[in-house]
Amino acid sequence: MKIAVLGTGMVGQALAGRLVELGHDVVTGTRDPQATLARTEPDGMGNPPYAAWATEHPQVRLATFADAVADAELVVNATGGAAAIPALQAAGADALAGKVVLDISNPLDFSQGFPPTLFVKDTDSLGEQIQREFPQARVVKSLNTLTAELMVRPTSLGEASSVFVSGDDADAKATVTELLQSFGHTDVIDLGDISTARGTEMLLPVWLRLMGALGTGMFNFKIVR
Amino acid sequence: MKIAVLGTGMVGQALAGRLVELGHDVVTGTRDPQATLARTEPDGMGNPPYAAWATEHPQVRLATFADAVADAELVVNATGGAAAIPALQAAGADALAGKVVLDISNPLDFSQGFPPTLFVKDTDSLGEQIQREFPQARVVKSLNTLTAELMVRPTSLGEASSVFVSGDDADAKATVTELLQSFGHTDVIDLGDISTARGTEMLLPVWLRLMGALGTGMFNFKIVR
Repeated sequence: MKIAVLGTGMVGQALAGRLVELGHDVVTGTRDPQATLARTEPDGMGNPPYAAWATEHPQVRLATFADAVADAELVVNATGGAAAIPALQAAGADALAGKVVLDISNPLDFSQGFPPTLFVKDTDSLGEQIQREFPQARVVKSLNTLTAELMVRPTSLGEASSVFVSGDDADAKATVTELLQSFGHTDVIDLGDISTARGTEMLLPVWLRLMGALGTGMFNFKIVR
Repeated sequence: MKIAVLGTGMVGQALAGRLVELGHDVVTGTRDPQATLARTEPDGMGNPPYAAWATEHPQVRLATFADAVADAELVVNATGGAAAIPALQAAGADALAGKVVLDISNPLDFSQGFPPTLFVKDTDSLGEQIQREFPQARVVKSLNTLTAELMVRPTSLGEASSVFVSGDDADAKATVTELLQSFGHTDVIDLGDISTARGTEMLLPVWLRLMGALGTGMFNFKIVR
Protein backbone atom coordinates (compact mmCIF):
# COMPACT_ATOMS: atom_id res chain seq x y z
CA MET A 1 0.00 0.00 0.00
CA LYS A 2 1.14 3.58 -0.61
CA ILE A 3 1.44 5.09 2.86
CA ALA A 4 2.35 8.60 4.00
CA VAL A 5 3.75 8.89 7.53
CA LEU A 6 3.49 12.47 8.79
CA GLY A 7 6.11 13.27 11.42
CA THR A 8 9.79 12.37 11.42
CA GLY A 9 10.38 11.82 15.14
CA MET A 10 10.64 8.55 17.02
CA VAL A 11 7.05 7.51 16.29
CA GLY A 12 7.23 8.40 12.60
CA GLN A 13 10.52 6.54 12.21
CA ALA A 14 9.20 3.43 13.95
CA LEU A 15 6.09 3.36 11.77
CA ALA A 16 7.86 4.13 8.51
CA GLY A 17 10.60 1.58 9.17
CA ARG A 18 8.17 -1.19 10.01
CA LEU A 19 5.89 -0.40 7.05
CA VAL A 20 8.83 -0.58 4.62
CA GLU A 21 9.87 -3.88 6.19
CA LEU A 22 6.37 -5.19 5.50
CA GLY A 23 6.65 -4.23 1.84
CA HIS A 24 4.71 -0.98 1.74
CA ASP A 25 5.62 2.04 -0.36
CA VAL A 26 6.37 4.68 2.29
CA VAL A 27 6.88 8.44 2.15
CA THR A 28 7.53 10.46 5.32
CA GLY A 29 6.11 13.97 5.51
CA THR A 30 7.54 16.98 7.27
CA ARG A 31 7.03 20.74 7.18
CA ASP A 32 10.39 21.54 5.63
CA PRO A 33 12.42 18.55 4.34
CA GLN A 34 15.67 20.55 4.05
CA ALA A 35 15.39 21.69 7.65
CA THR A 36 14.59 18.15 8.82
CA LEU A 37 17.63 16.73 7.01
CA ALA A 38 19.87 19.56 8.23
CA ARG A 39 19.28 18.71 11.90
CA THR A 40 22.35 17.03 13.40
CA GLU A 41 21.37 17.09 17.09
CA PRO A 42 19.39 14.36 18.87
CA ASP A 43 15.76 15.32 19.61
CA GLY A 44 14.52 16.26 23.07
CA MET A 45 14.21 12.56 23.97
CA GLY A 46 17.78 11.75 22.92
CA ASN A 47 16.82 10.02 19.67
CA PRO A 48 19.20 10.41 16.72
CA PRO A 49 18.27 13.00 14.09
CA TYR A 50 16.14 11.98 11.13
CA ALA A 51 19.07 12.18 8.68
CA ALA A 52 20.87 9.35 10.50
CA TRP A 53 17.77 7.17 10.34
CA ALA A 54 17.20 8.08 6.69
CA THR A 55 20.61 6.83 5.56
CA GLU A 56 19.63 3.41 6.95
CA HIS A 57 16.24 3.52 5.21
CA PRO A 58 16.98 4.65 1.65
CA GLN A 59 13.64 3.27 0.42
CA VAL A 60 11.78 5.95 2.40
CA ARG A 61 11.39 9.25 0.57
CA LEU A 62 11.13 12.45 2.63
CA ALA A 63 8.69 15.05 1.32
CA THR A 64 6.58 17.99 2.38
CA PHE A 65 3.28 17.13 4.10
CA ALA A 66 1.39 17.98 0.90
CA ASP A 67 3.72 16.02 -1.38
CA ALA A 68 3.73 13.00 0.96
CA VAL A 69 -0.05 12.77 1.09
CA ALA A 70 -0.75 13.42 -2.60
CA ASP A 71 -0.47 9.80 -3.81
CA ALA A 72 -1.01 8.01 -0.49
CA GLU A 73 -3.77 5.49 0.05
CA LEU A 74 -3.40 5.69 3.82
CA VAL A 75 -2.04 8.52 5.97
CA VAL A 76 -0.47 7.97 9.39
CA ASN A 77 -0.42 11.02 11.64
CA ALA A 78 2.68 10.50 13.79
CA THR A 79 3.27 14.14 14.70
CA GLY A 80 3.18 15.50 18.22
CA GLY A 81 -0.32 16.37 19.40
CA ALA A 82 -0.04 20.15 19.07
CA ALA A 83 1.37 19.76 15.54
CA ALA A 84 -1.30 17.36 14.30
CA ILE A 85 -3.92 19.72 12.87
CA PRO A 86 -1.36 22.15 11.36
CA ALA A 87 0.41 19.21 9.68
CA LEU A 88 -2.83 17.86 8.27
CA GLN A 89 -3.85 21.35 7.13
CA ALA A 90 -0.53 21.62 5.32
CA ALA A 91 -1.25 18.25 3.70
CA GLY A 92 -4.54 19.71 2.55
CA ALA A 93 -8.15 18.85 3.24
CA ASP A 94 -8.78 17.97 -0.41
CA ALA A 95 -5.86 15.54 -0.48
CA LEU A 96 -7.12 13.86 2.69
CA ALA A 97 -10.71 13.51 1.45
CA GLY A 98 -11.74 9.85 1.35
CA LYS A 99 -8.44 8.64 2.79
CA VAL A 100 -7.94 6.63 5.94
CA VAL A 101 -6.07 8.77 8.47
CA LEU A 102 -4.58 6.69 11.27
CA ASP A 103 -4.07 9.19 14.08
CA ILE A 104 -1.47 8.16 16.68
CA SER A 105 -0.95 11.57 18.28
CA ASN A 106 -1.69 12.49 21.88
CA PRO A 107 -2.79 15.93 23.12
CA LEU A 108 0.11 16.35 25.51
CA ASP A 109 0.88 19.80 26.89
CA PHE A 110 4.44 20.02 28.21
CA SER A 111 4.24 23.78 28.85
CA GLN A 112 4.06 23.25 32.64
CA GLY A 113 6.82 20.60 32.68
CA PHE A 114 6.61 16.89 33.41
CA PRO A 115 4.28 15.10 33.66
CA PRO A 116 2.42 16.83 30.82
CA THR A 117 -1.29 17.60 31.03
CA LEU A 118 -3.80 17.13 28.19
CA PHE A 119 -4.83 20.13 26.09
CA VAL A 120 -8.13 18.46 25.18
CA LYS A 121 -9.92 15.81 27.25
CA ASP A 122 -13.04 14.30 28.73
CA THR A 123 -15.71 16.10 26.67
CA ASP A 124 -13.67 16.16 23.43
CA SER A 125 -10.52 14.58 22.04
CA LEU A 126 -7.80 15.31 19.52
CA GLY A 127 -9.16 12.48 17.37
CA GLU A 128 -12.54 14.21 17.24
CA GLN A 129 -10.96 17.60 16.56
CA ILE A 130 -9.15 16.11 13.57
CA GLN A 131 -12.31 14.40 12.29
CA ARG A 132 -14.26 17.68 12.61
CA GLU A 133 -11.51 19.68 10.89
CA PHE A 134 -11.35 17.16 8.01
CA PRO A 135 -14.87 15.78 7.70
CA GLN A 136 -14.05 14.00 4.42
CA ALA A 137 -11.13 12.09 5.93
CA ARG A 138 -11.80 8.71 7.53
CA VAL A 139 -10.07 9.15 10.87
CA VAL A 140 -9.14 6.15 13.02
CA LYS A 141 -7.49 6.71 16.37
CA SER A 142 -5.18 3.91 17.42
CA LEU A 143 -1.71 3.01 18.73
CA ASN A 144 -1.55 6.11 20.96
CA THR A 145 -1.50 3.96 24.11
CA LEU A 146 1.93 2.34 23.82
CA THR A 147 5.53 3.21 23.05
CA ALA A 148 6.67 3.43 19.41
CA GLU A 149 8.74 0.25 19.48
CA LEU A 150 5.76 -1.77 20.74
CA MET A 151 3.29 -0.14 18.34
CA VAL A 152 5.03 -1.85 15.45
CA ARG A 153 6.53 -4.93 17.15
CA PRO A 154 4.19 -5.88 20.03
CA THR A 155 5.39 -9.49 20.10
CA SER A 156 8.69 -8.29 21.58
CA LEU A 157 6.87 -8.15 24.95
CA GLY A 158 6.64 -11.95 24.86
CA GLU A 159 2.95 -11.90 25.79
CA ALA A 160 -0.10 -10.74 23.87
CA SER A 161 -1.48 -7.34 24.84
CA SER A 162 -4.26 -5.07 23.56
CA VAL A 163 -4.67 -2.07 21.28
CA PHE A 164 -7.79 -0.07 20.52
CA VAL A 165 -9.43 1.48 17.47
CA SER A 166 -11.88 4.40 17.51
CA GLY A 167 -13.53 5.81 14.41
CA ASP A 168 -16.77 6.56 12.62
CA ASP A 169 -16.00 4.56 9.45
CA ALA A 170 -16.19 0.77 9.78
CA ASP A 171 -14.19 0.11 6.58
CA ALA A 172 -11.44 2.46 7.71
CA LYS A 173 -11.28 0.66 11.07
CA ALA A 174 -11.08 -2.68 9.24
CA THR A 175 -8.17 -1.40 7.13
CA VAL A 176 -6.33 -0.17 10.21
CA THR A 177 -7.07 -3.39 12.10
CA GLU A 178 -5.49 -5.42 9.29
CA LEU A 179 -2.44 -3.19 9.38
CA LEU A 180 -2.17 -3.62 13.17
CA GLN A 181 -2.47 -7.38 12.79
CA SER A 182 0.36 -7.29 10.24
CA PHE A 183 2.49 -5.62 12.94
CA GLY A 184 1.73 -8.53 15.29
CA HIS A 185 -1.24 -7.21 17.27
CA THR A 186 -3.59 -10.08 18.07
CA ASP A 187 -6.11 -8.25 20.30
CA VAL A 188 -7.47 -5.17 18.50
CA ILE A 189 -10.53 -3.88 20.36
CA ASP A 190 -13.03 -1.71 18.48
CA LEU A 191 -14.23 0.80 21.08
CA GLY A 192 -16.78 2.46 18.80
CA ASP A 193 -17.01 5.86 17.14
CA ILE A 194 -14.31 8.54 17.18
CA SER A 195 -15.59 9.97 20.49
CA THR A 196 -14.16 6.87 22.18
CA ALA A 197 -10.73 8.37 21.48
CA ARG A 198 -11.38 10.42 24.63
CA GLY A 199 -10.85 7.23 26.58
CA THR A 200 -7.60 6.17 24.96
CA GLU A 201 -6.13 9.69 25.00
CA MET A 202 -6.96 9.89 28.72
CA LEU A 203 -4.89 6.74 29.24
CA LEU A 204 -1.75 8.83 28.80
CA PRO A 205 -1.56 10.15 32.37
CA VAL A 206 -1.49 6.65 33.87
CA TRP A 207 0.83 5.48 31.07
CA LEU A 208 3.31 8.22 32.02
CA ARG A 209 3.11 7.36 35.73
CA LEU A 210 3.57 3.68 34.93
CA MET A 211 6.66 4.53 32.90
CA GLY A 212 7.98 6.33 35.99
CA ALA A 213 7.09 3.50 38.37
CA LEU A 214 8.39 0.70 36.14
CA GLY A 215 11.42 2.61 34.86
CA THR A 216 10.65 1.71 31.25
CA GLY A 217 8.18 2.44 28.48
CA MET A 218 8.30 -1.17 27.33
CA PHE A 219 4.93 -2.24 28.68
CA ASN A 220 1.40 -2.34 27.39
CA PHE A 221 -2.16 -2.65 28.60
CA LYS A 222 -3.81 -6.01 28.15
CA ILE A 223 -7.53 -6.24 28.65
CA VAL A 224 -7.96 -9.50 30.56
CA ARG A 225 -11.51 -10.87 30.23
CA MET B 1 -8.63 -5.71 61.52
CA LYS B 2 -11.45 -3.31 62.46
CA ILE B 3 -12.60 -1.85 59.16
CA ALA B 4 -15.25 0.76 58.33
CA VAL B 5 -16.68 0.62 54.82
CA LEU B 6 -18.36 3.92 53.93
CA GLY B 7 -21.07 3.48 51.31
CA THR B 8 -23.76 0.80 51.12
CA GLY B 9 -24.05 0.40 47.35
CA MET B 10 -22.64 -2.33 45.14
CA VAL B 11 -19.01 -1.40 45.88
CA GLY B 12 -19.53 -1.10 49.62
CA GLN B 13 -21.39 -4.42 49.74
CA ALA B 14 -18.67 -6.21 47.74
CA LEU B 15 -15.91 -4.88 49.98
CA ALA B 16 -17.75 -5.45 53.26
CA GLY B 17 -18.77 -8.98 52.26
CA ARG B 18 -15.28 -9.99 51.24
CA LEU B 19 -13.66 -8.43 54.32
CA VAL B 20 -16.01 -10.34 56.62
CA GLU B 21 -15.23 -13.53 54.73
CA LEU B 22 -11.52 -12.88 55.36
CA GLY B 23 -12.16 -12.58 59.11
CA HIS B 24 -12.20 -8.82 59.57
CA ASP B 25 -14.51 -6.95 61.94
CA VAL B 26 -16.58 -4.83 59.54
CA VAL B 27 -18.96 -1.92 60.03
CA THR B 28 -20.66 -0.22 57.07
CA GLY B 29 -21.28 3.50 57.26
CA THR B 30 -24.12 5.49 55.77
CA ARG B 31 -25.62 8.95 56.25
CA ASP B 32 -28.88 7.70 57.76
CA PRO B 33 -29.00 4.00 58.70
CA GLN B 34 -32.79 3.97 59.11
CA ALA B 35 -33.27 5.44 55.62
CA THR B 36 -30.77 2.97 54.13
CA LEU B 37 -32.58 0.01 55.71
CA ALA B 38 -36.01 1.35 54.72
CA ARG B 39 -35.17 1.31 51.00
CA THR B 40 -36.95 -1.53 49.24
CA GLU B 41 -36.23 -0.61 45.62
CA PRO B 42 -33.17 -1.74 43.64
CA ASP B 43 -30.62 1.03 43.09
CA GLY B 44 -30.11 2.83 39.76
CA MET B 45 -27.97 -0.07 38.49
CA GLY B 46 -30.56 -2.72 39.38
CA ASN B 47 -28.75 -4.01 42.45
CA PRO B 48 -30.91 -5.22 45.38
CA PRO B 49 -31.38 -2.79 48.28
CA TYR B 50 -28.95 -2.87 51.19
CA ALA B 51 -31.50 -4.43 53.55
CA ALA B 52 -31.61 -7.60 51.41
CA TRP B 53 -27.82 -7.85 51.45
CA ALA B 54 -27.72 -7.12 55.18
CA THR B 55 -29.94 -10.07 56.07
CA GLU B 56 -27.38 -12.35 54.41
CA HIS B 57 -24.50 -10.66 56.23
CA PRO B 58 -25.62 -10.43 59.87
CA GLN B 59 -22.01 -10.00 61.05
CA VAL B 60 -21.87 -6.55 59.41
CA ARG B 61 -23.18 -3.74 61.56
CA LEU B 62 -24.69 -0.69 59.83
CA ALA B 63 -23.93 2.67 61.47
CA THR B 64 -23.67 6.37 60.75
CA PHE B 65 -20.47 7.51 59.05
CA ALA B 66 -19.20 8.90 62.36
CA ASP B 67 -20.11 5.82 64.39
CA ALA B 68 -18.61 3.48 61.75
CA VAL B 69 -15.27 5.25 61.69
CA ALA B 70 -14.90 5.81 65.46
CA ASP B 71 -13.23 2.46 66.31
CA ALA B 72 -11.94 1.57 62.83
CA GLU B 73 -8.27 0.91 62.15
CA LEU B 74 -8.81 1.26 58.38
CA VAL B 75 -11.50 3.16 56.49
CA VAL B 76 -12.66 2.21 53.00
CA ASN B 77 -14.34 4.99 51.06
CA ALA B 78 -16.78 3.16 48.78
CA THR B 79 -19.20 6.02 48.23
CA GLY B 80 -19.95 7.58 44.86
CA GLY B 81 -17.43 10.25 43.87
CA ALA B 82 -19.63 13.26 44.57
CA ALA B 83 -20.53 11.86 48.00
CA ALA B 84 -16.97 11.09 49.06
CA ILE B 85 -15.92 14.31 50.79
CA PRO B 86 -19.31 14.90 52.47
CA ALA B 87 -19.26 11.32 53.80
CA LEU B 88 -15.74 11.72 55.16
CA GLN B 89 -16.67 15.10 56.67
CA ALA B 90 -19.59 13.42 58.40
CA ALA B 91 -17.16 10.78 59.69
CA GLY B 92 -15.08 13.63 61.08
CA ALA B 93 -11.56 14.84 60.41
CA ASP B 94 -10.48 14.06 63.97
CA ALA B 95 -11.71 10.48 63.71
CA LEU B 96 -9.83 10.02 60.42
CA ALA B 97 -6.56 11.47 61.72
CA GLY B 98 -3.79 8.90 61.48
CA LYS B 99 -6.02 6.29 59.85
CA VAL B 100 -5.49 4.62 56.52
CA VAL B 101 -8.27 5.72 54.14
CA LEU B 102 -8.54 3.44 51.12
CA ASP B 103 -10.35 5.59 48.55
CA ILE B 104 -12.10 3.61 45.79
CA SER B 105 -14.37 6.38 44.52
CA ASN B 106 -14.31 7.91 41.05
CA PRO B 107 -15.20 11.53 40.20
CA LEU B 108 -17.97 10.59 37.78
CA ASP B 109 -20.45 13.26 36.72
CA PHE B 110 -23.64 11.73 35.33
CA SER B 111 -25.46 15.07 35.07
CA GLN B 112 -25.14 15.08 31.27
CA GLY B 113 -26.10 11.41 30.89
CA PHE B 114 -24.01 8.45 29.80
CA PRO B 115 -21.10 8.17 29.44
CA PRO B 116 -20.33 10.33 32.48
CA THR B 117 -17.58 12.93 32.46
CA LEU B 118 -15.12 13.56 35.31
CA PHE B 119 -15.73 16.44 37.72
CA VAL B 120 -12.03 16.65 38.53
CA LYS B 121 -9.17 15.54 36.27
CA ASP B 122 -5.76 16.04 34.74
CA THR B 123 -4.37 18.75 37.04
CA ASP B 124 -6.04 17.42 40.20
CA SER B 125 -7.87 14.31 41.34
CA LEU B 126 -10.49 13.25 43.84
CA GLY B 127 -7.80 11.35 45.73
CA GLU B 128 -5.81 14.56 46.13
CA GLN B 129 -8.92 16.54 47.11
CA ILE B 130 -9.60 14.04 49.88
CA GLN B 131 -5.98 14.12 51.08
CA ARG B 132 -6.03 17.96 51.13
CA GLU B 133 -9.36 18.05 52.97
CA PHE B 134 -8.12 15.54 55.56
CA PRO B 135 -4.38 16.19 55.85
CA GLN B 136 -4.04 13.92 58.91
CA ALA B 137 -5.59 10.92 57.13
CA ARG B 138 -3.30 8.56 55.22
CA VAL B 139 -5.12 8.35 51.90
CA VAL B 140 -4.41 5.54 49.45
CA LYS B 141 -6.19 5.48 46.12
CA SER B 142 -6.74 2.01 44.74
CA LEU B 143 -9.28 -0.43 43.25
CA ASN B 144 -11.09 2.34 41.34
CA THR B 145 -10.10 0.80 37.99
CA LEU B 146 -12.17 -2.39 38.04
CA THR B 147 -15.66 -3.60 38.78
CA ALA B 148 -16.67 -4.36 42.38
CA GLU B 149 -16.78 -8.14 41.94
CA LEU B 150 -13.22 -8.17 40.57
CA MET B 151 -11.90 -5.73 43.18
CA VAL B 152 -12.41 -8.36 45.83
CA ARG B 153 -12.12 -11.60 43.81
CA PRO B 154 -9.72 -10.91 40.92
CA THR B 155 -8.87 -14.58 40.46
CA SER B 156 -12.35 -15.13 39.02
CA LEU B 157 -10.96 -13.75 35.71
CA GLY B 158 -8.78 -16.86 35.44
CA GLU B 159 -5.68 -14.81 34.63
CA ALA B 160 -3.62 -12.42 36.74
CA SER B 161 -4.24 -8.71 36.13
CA SER B 162 -3.02 -5.48 37.72
CA VAL B 163 -4.16 -2.94 40.30
CA PHE B 164 -2.53 0.30 41.33
CA VAL B 165 -1.86 2.16 44.58
CA SER B 166 -1.28 5.91 44.88
CA GLY B 167 -0.51 7.68 48.15
CA ASP B 168 1.91 9.83 50.09
CA ASP B 169 2.37 7.42 53.02
CA ALA B 170 4.50 4.33 52.32
CA ASP B 171 3.23 2.42 55.38
CA ALA B 172 -0.37 3.08 54.41
CA LYS B 173 0.33 1.79 50.88
CA ALA B 174 1.95 -1.31 52.38
CA THR B 175 -1.15 -1.95 54.53
CA VAL B 176 -3.44 -1.55 51.53
CA THR B 177 -1.19 -3.71 49.36
CA GLU B 178 -1.39 -6.53 51.91
CA LEU B 179 -5.16 -6.21 51.95
CA LEU B 180 -5.27 -6.35 48.13
CA GLN B 181 -3.06 -9.43 48.16
CA SER B 182 -5.44 -11.08 50.61
CA PHE B 183 -8.20 -10.50 48.02
CA GLY B 184 -6.09 -12.35 45.43
CA HIS B 185 -4.30 -9.47 43.67
CA THR B 186 -0.83 -10.61 42.66
CA ASP B 187 0.30 -7.53 40.70
CA VAL B 188 -0.09 -4.38 42.83
CA ILE B 189 1.80 -1.51 41.19
CA ASP B 190 2.85 1.44 43.36
CA LEU B 191 2.50 4.45 41.04
CA GLY B 192 3.87 6.95 43.55
CA ASP B 193 2.34 9.80 45.53
CA ILE B 194 -1.35 10.68 45.70
CA SER B 195 -1.10 12.87 42.57
CA THR B 196 -0.76 9.67 40.54
CA ALA B 197 -4.44 9.09 41.29
CA ARG B 198 -5.05 11.48 38.37
CA GLY B 199 -3.89 8.68 36.10
CA THR B 200 -6.06 5.93 37.52
CA GLU B 201 -9.14 8.16 37.80
CA MET B 202 -8.65 9.12 34.13
CA LEU B 203 -8.80 5.42 33.25
CA LEU B 204 -12.55 5.52 33.81
CA PRO B 205 -13.49 6.89 30.37
CA VAL B 206 -11.77 4.02 28.54
CA TRP B 207 -13.06 1.56 31.14
CA LEU B 208 -16.63 2.69 30.41
CA ARG B 209 -16.12 2.43 26.64
CA LEU B 210 -14.57 -1.02 27.05
CA MET B 211 -17.61 -2.09 29.07
CA GLY B 212 -19.74 -0.97 26.13
CA ALA B 213 -17.57 -2.67 23.50
CA LEU B 214 -17.17 -5.94 25.43
CA GLY B 215 -20.71 -6.02 26.81
CA THR B 216 -19.49 -6.73 30.32
CA GLY B 217 -17.69 -5.10 33.22
CA MET B 218 -15.89 -8.35 34.01
CA PHE B 219 -12.49 -7.37 32.65
CA ASN B 220 -9.37 -5.73 34.03
CA PHE B 221 -6.21 -4.01 32.88
CA LYS B 222 -3.05 -6.06 33.05
CA ILE B 223 0.23 -4.25 32.63
CA VAL B 224 2.24 -6.61 30.43
CA ARG B 225 5.99 -5.96 30.73
